[in-house]
Amino acid sequence: MRDVAIIGLGQTPVEEHWPTSIRELALHASLAALQDANVEQVDAVYVGNMISGEITGQEHLGVLVADALGLFGVEAMKIEAACASGAAALRVGAMAVASGLNDLVLVTGVEKMTDMGGRETTAALAMAADAEYEVSQGVSFVALNALLMRRYMHEYGWARKDFANFVINAHENGKHNPNAMFHSTITAERYANSPTIADPVGLFDASPICDGAAAVVLAPLEYARTLSPTPVRIKGVGIGTAPIAVHDRRDPLALEAARISARRAYEMAGVGPEEIDFFELHDAFTIMSALSLEASGFAERGRGVTLALENEIALEGRIPITTMGGLKARGHPVGATGVYQVVEAALQLRGQAGATQLPDARLGMTQNIGGSGATIITHILERMD
Amino acid sequence: MRDVAIIGLGQTPVEEHWPTSIRELALHASLAALQDANVEQVDAVYVGNMISGEITGQEHLGVLVADALGLFGVEAMKIEAACASGAAALRVGAMAVASGLNDLVLVTGVEKMTDMGGRETTAALAMAADAEYEVSQGVSFVALNALLMRRYMHEYGWARKDFANFVINAHENGKHNPNAMFHSTITAERYANSPTIADPVGLFDASPICDGAAAVVLAPLEYARTLSPTPVRIKGVGIGTAPIAVHDRRDPLALEAARISARRAYEMAGVGPEEIDFFELHDAFTIMSALSLEASGFAERGRGVTLALENEIALEGRIPITTMGGLKARGHPVGATGVYQVVEAALQLRGQAGATQLPDARLGMTQNIGGSGATIITHILERMD
Repeated sequence: MRDVAIIGLGQTPVEEHWPTSIRELALHASLAALQDANVEQVDAVYVGNMISGEITGQEHLGVLVADALGLFGVEAMKIEAACASGAAALRVGAMAVASGLNDLVLVTGVEKMTDMGGRETTAALAMAADAEYEVSQGVSFVALNALLMRRYMHEYGWARKDFANFVINAHENGKHNPNAMFHSTITAERYANSPTIADPVGLFDASPICDGAAAVVLAPLEYARTLSPTPVRIKGVGIGTAPIAVHDRRDPLALEAARISARRAYEMAGVGPEEIDFFELHDAFTIMSALSLEASGFAERGRGVTLALENEIALEGRIPITTMGGLKARGHPVGATGVYQVVEAALQLRGQAGATQLPDARLGMTQNIGGSGATIITHILERMD
Repeated sequence: MRDVAIIGLGQTPVEEHWPTSIRELALHASLAALQDANVEQVDAVYVGNMISGEITGQEHLGVLVADALGLFGVEAMKIEAACASGAAALRVGAMAVASGLNDLVLVTGVEKMTDMGGRETTAALAMAADAEYEVSQGVSFVALNALLMRRYMHEYGWARKDFANFVINAHENGKHNPNAMFHSTITAERYANSPTIADPVGLFDASPICDGAAAVVLAPLEYARTLSPTPVRIKGVGIGTAPIAVHDRRDPLALEAARISARRAYEMAGVGPEEIDFFELHDAFTIMSALSLEASGFAERGRGVTLALENEIALEGRIPITTMGGLKARGHPVGATGVYQVVEAALQLRGQAGATQLPDARLGMTQNIGGSGATIITHILERMD
């Protein structure tokens, strides 16, 4: 099995890209990644996307993107795992390189969510949940997260205001990221006064509806060293799953899929949570930040919120998270998010993260969550120098 | 890179499964494959599917299927490449095993097409074409194939009746397949008198709307020998792509993606078309059978129809095709088709193809087509004994 490295990074700003098609979004990010990698041809294109069919009436995104790039004849396909589609596409791309079946691979995550009304987008996103046993009961995706947040508050005695720092920290970091959707400051007071969208989830507990694309170019590590001055190694990866419906999970707050996923990634990388320098987690909702920190070994059960309260998630804290804004401030174009996380982690490891650059980061971790915790994918990336 | 073998096969009958959900369809085929392989646990589940979101309101099929199977915690995702989704999922599954990242892998192709009216299904299928430049002009998927068939007839002087034997042969073979949708005989006269659905495509030139699921279990070849008395080796695989829109292809009748795909598969397998014992091709439309035979090296340009006219595609012919009914008679549940083809080819190689068993078949080829020839995936399978 060959080691795999990331040698090119690309992304579009995350925003409401009304005049730009899904094809163009993918094209912009992909071209940037190819240019960054200084390559013109690849062997395959793996596209992470969740809801292009429902929102833009376009499936078959693999060849759509390869074709738009002028990559005639290359292998291409779309990978879907709800909001974890981006990391799933990276998983497939890395397997292609690791196996020796392909050498140079482009992985592009893309999502266009704003071509429909909010109602339709909400319905499309609910397809990450169980259509027959959850959605048929009228539950939305936000509502499922509200159930988890309510239960967590009940079990461990937290109040909604205790989650504020996840949001404040994300916006503080996102402010400096030119590709982030939001550059505004959120104070504890503003968070406390935000409207409720599904009690106890407030507007600022949730990530926004938006459009965006991010891309990486992969190569075998040995070959990568000749192509890039700053290759980033994929040192560990793990996918874990749990029952798709929240009510089928023995312990819904355990985020069992994250526990499995992180354990597999740690084992493959030969490291533990104490060696991770920063963690790009999946803060689609604040409750997911808390659960993710706990399931990944950074906090005891019920104590993920403590890390936020004690500011240990800030750039200078014990485990910096959402260093370029996270899903909350950078934005969450669902099928693209997993690739955005990896692009940002790689920028940190390459020392190119700008104003929120962490000093001497060697090991970065990303975690991408599909559904309300059903598919979870963890990557551990390492600076090579 | 490890060699990969198929050690388990499963399928549901192809029909209009009104009372059965997409989850149940996938479950039936997957359980059959696991039972056939005599394994209870796998490391990963890769699901090939195209339009579950549009038809049944369910994305996130990877974990849906893994969960239904009780495979707690395993890696899971959905792979999409339009009507080539099944073969694309197999490609990913084989890469997972080849790389050493997973040992035992389940690949399930599933599609439920009949939960909506024909109008909605037609619209969903059109998402395999270019939404912005083809579908926006009002073209359906059948119409794109009609354009190709008309052009082919014009270029090479064939009449519609010359395609009849593709259909007659498929039904002749499908008659004996208990999992086929149709067990009726089609005569040249019946074909000639069938209604036109998009001139020159007649009703019998097109495959039916239907539901079904097929599954295979993969293992490293060495390990496979200890698990299965009849492992089937994946000897070669190739994916080729062409511009997604027909009008963007320099030579639309060349089926360039098939040419590339077959060449890659032949190179990897170290064989040529003359060594292939039978060919499960993608007869979604009769024109595709002709183009596929030509692009894969079994006939000169414009002469694919000749193979049908001279009956060289029958069981006793030079290159038997659709030996268990093909897309026309077995049926074409789009995202499942690529896996059905591989299951049927493996049955032939295991000597379990029943009344249409080929004597002493050693090398079988399958070809799965996404869109009107945009993504094409060829697998070459070998009997191991």
